[in-house]
Amino acid sequence: MYYIGVDIGGTAIKAGVVDDAGRILESGRIQTVANDLDAFLSTLTGLIRGFQKSVRIGAVGIGVPGLRSSKTRTIETSPNIPCLTKVSLEAELADQLKVPVITQNDANAAAYGEFLIGAGQGTRHMVHLTVGTGLGSGFILDGKVFEGALGYAAEFGHTVVQPDGRPCTCGSRGCVETIVSATGILITAREKMIDAPSTSEAVFEAARRGDRGALEVFEETGKYLGIACSNLINLFNPDMIAIGGGVMASGGLLLAPARREARKCAFGPSFDHCAIVQSKLWPEAGVIGAAMLARDRLN
Amino acid sequence: MYYIGVDIGGTAIKAGVVDDAGRILESGRIQTVANDLDAFLSTLTGLIRGFQKSVRIGAVGIGVPGLRSSKTRTIETSPNIPCLTKVSLEAELADQLKVPVITQNDANAAAYGEFLIGAGQGTRHMVHLTVGTGLGSGFILDGKVFEGALGYAAEFGHTVVQPDGRPCTCGSRGCVETIVSATGILITAREKMIDAPSTSEAVFEAARRGDRGALEVFEETGKYLGIACSNLINLFNPDMIAIGGGVMASGGLLLAPARREARKCAFGPSFDHCAIVQSKLWPEAGVIGAAMLARDRLN
Repeated sequence: MYYIGVDIGGTAIKAGVVDDAGRILESGRIQTVANDLDAFLSTLTGLIRGFQKSVRIGAVGIGVPGLRSSKTRTIETSPNIPCLTKVSLEAELADQLKVPVITQNDANAAAYGEFLIGAGQGTRHMVHLTVGTGLGSGFILDGKVFEGALGYAAEFGHTVVQPDGRPCTCGSRGCVETIVSATGILITAREKMIDAPSTSEAVFEAARRGDRGALEVFEETGKYLGIACSNLINLFNPDMIAIGGGVMASGGLLLAPARREARKCAFGPSFDHCAIVQSKLWPEAGVIGAAMLARDRLN
Repeated sequence: MYYIGVDIGGTAIKAGVVDDAGRILESGRIQTVANDLDAFLSTLTGLIRGFQKSVRIGAVGIGVPGLRSSKTRTIETSPNIPCLTKVSLEAELADQLKVPVITQNDANAAAYGEFLIGAGQGTRHMVHLTVGTGLGSGFILDGKVFEGALGYAAEFGHTVVQPDGRPCTCGSRGCVETIVSATGILITAREKMIDAPSTSEAVFEAARRGDRGALEVFEETGKYLGIACSNLINLFNPDMIAIGGGVMASGGLLLAPARREARKCAFGPSFDHCAIVQSKLWPEAGVIGAAMLARDRLN
C-alpha cells in the first residue's frame, strides 16, 4: 500500500508518495498560500491528486504547523498560515480526495518519522528537535507521539531558559527558541561580531573561515543547545535526542559544545544513556512521518 | 485487601496501612538510618512487621529518594541515604516479610497518590510538584507514572532556568530547585531582606506580618514557580499541576504570582486548560501512592 505524506510549512508545502517501509517514491512541492483558504485547499488537492493519478493511495497524512486540537481535529492557531485557523483539514480534504486524511502537528509528525525510519530506530523514548528559523520539537514516549491533554504538547522550544531574556514570537521572553535557532544565531551574532552577517548560513561560513566572533556565536548557541538537552535528559530520561533542521548543517560546531554542556548539567546515569545525534531524515522527516501516521491509522 | 505504603525520607521513614480505596487506617514513623544498611533494614522491617501483626497485608510499596533503576529495580544513588546505593530493597525485604515488595522513586509515588486519590482525580495527564527542602516532581502521563528509559525521568527540579545561576546540589547551576524550594527561599531572603531569617517558615511569618523584603521574596519565588509551571504546560499540555510540600503552607503568596507569570509565558489554550492547584494529600501522598502502586502490582 502507498500513502501520501504532506509537510505544510510557512513558505512551501512538501509532499511525497511513501511506501509501507517509509521510502519516498515520488515527491513534489508547492508554495503555501497563507491567507486564502480556498486557494490553499485547491493547490493542496491539486498536488495530492497529481500523485493519485499514478498510484493507488491508501491514506493521506498531513503535518500542520501550529496548535492542532486532538479532540476536535481542527487547527486552533497557525501563526504563519492564518487561513488555517479553526479549520479541519481532515474534513475539508477527505470528501474531495475520497481517502482517509489524518492531521498531526508538523513537529510531532517529523519526530515520528525520525523515530520509525531514521536515527531513532530501536529506541522507545526519543526527543526530536528541528533547529530552523525556530526550534521545533516532538516527543516519542513509549513508542508513541505524545500529544498531551488537547494535542498541544511538546512545545519545548517555548520553555523559558532565560527569565526576562529575549522577546519570543510566542509572546513570552527567554524561550529556548530565542537562542537556539537561526533567528537566535543572528541576534547572538549582532552581540558578538563586529560586522554581523544577515543570515545564519553566513555566520556559519565565517565560523568555518575561523572568524573568532562567529566561532563564539556557535559556542554560545551550542552551550544553550546543551542546556536544552540536559533539561530534556533530566525530564524524560530518553534513549535519544535526535536533532535536525537547516542549522544543523553546522554539525560539530554546535554538537560538540552541546554535548559538553549537557554532560556538565544532566544527571550522570541519564546523560550516559542518552545518545545526542544528528537526525538522518531531515528535511524529509515531516513527509515520511506524516505518511507513517496515515499508514498506522489505516492498519 | 490492605497494603503498606512506605515513604523514605532523609530524616524520617513514614509508613501506613492503606485500604483498596487509598485510606490510611494506621500509620507510623521512624528515624532514617542513613549510613548502615543492616540497621536501616532492621528498623524498617520492625516497623512493617508491627503492622502485619494487626492486619493481613497483601503487598508493600516503598517510595525511595534518588535514582531507582526500573531495569534492575535497585537504587543507583541516593545522596541523602548513602547506605541504599546499589541496593535492591525489593529483594532484601520480600524474603523477610513474606509478601511482595515493590519500590518506586519517592516523588513518582507521591504523584501517583495525588493523581489517584487527591487533587488529580479524573485527570489523565498530571504533574505533581513537592516544594520542600528541594523541588520534587512526578509526571503522570496517560494515567501512568512516567519513568523514562531507565526509571530516572521526571527530575524537573533539576532543569536549568538560570544559566550560570546558583550552584545546585546536583552539581549543575541554575536548576529550578535552587530558587523554588525552602533552600532557594532562604538564599533569596539573604538577597532581599536586611535581617534575613534562618528558616523559610520565618520568612513566611515575616511576609504575613507585611515585611516588604519578605513579600518580595515570595513574589520572586512565585514568579519562578510560574515560569516552571509555564514550562510544564508548554511541554506536557497537562490537565493539572498539583503542588504540595511544606513551603506551600504559604498558599496564595506563592500561587498568585505563579499563576500570573504562567499565564504570561505559556500558550493560551494550554494555560487555560491546566488547573494549577495545591495538592490535597500532602504530607501523606507518598505513603498513599506507594501503597496504591503495591495494590496495582498485585492486581
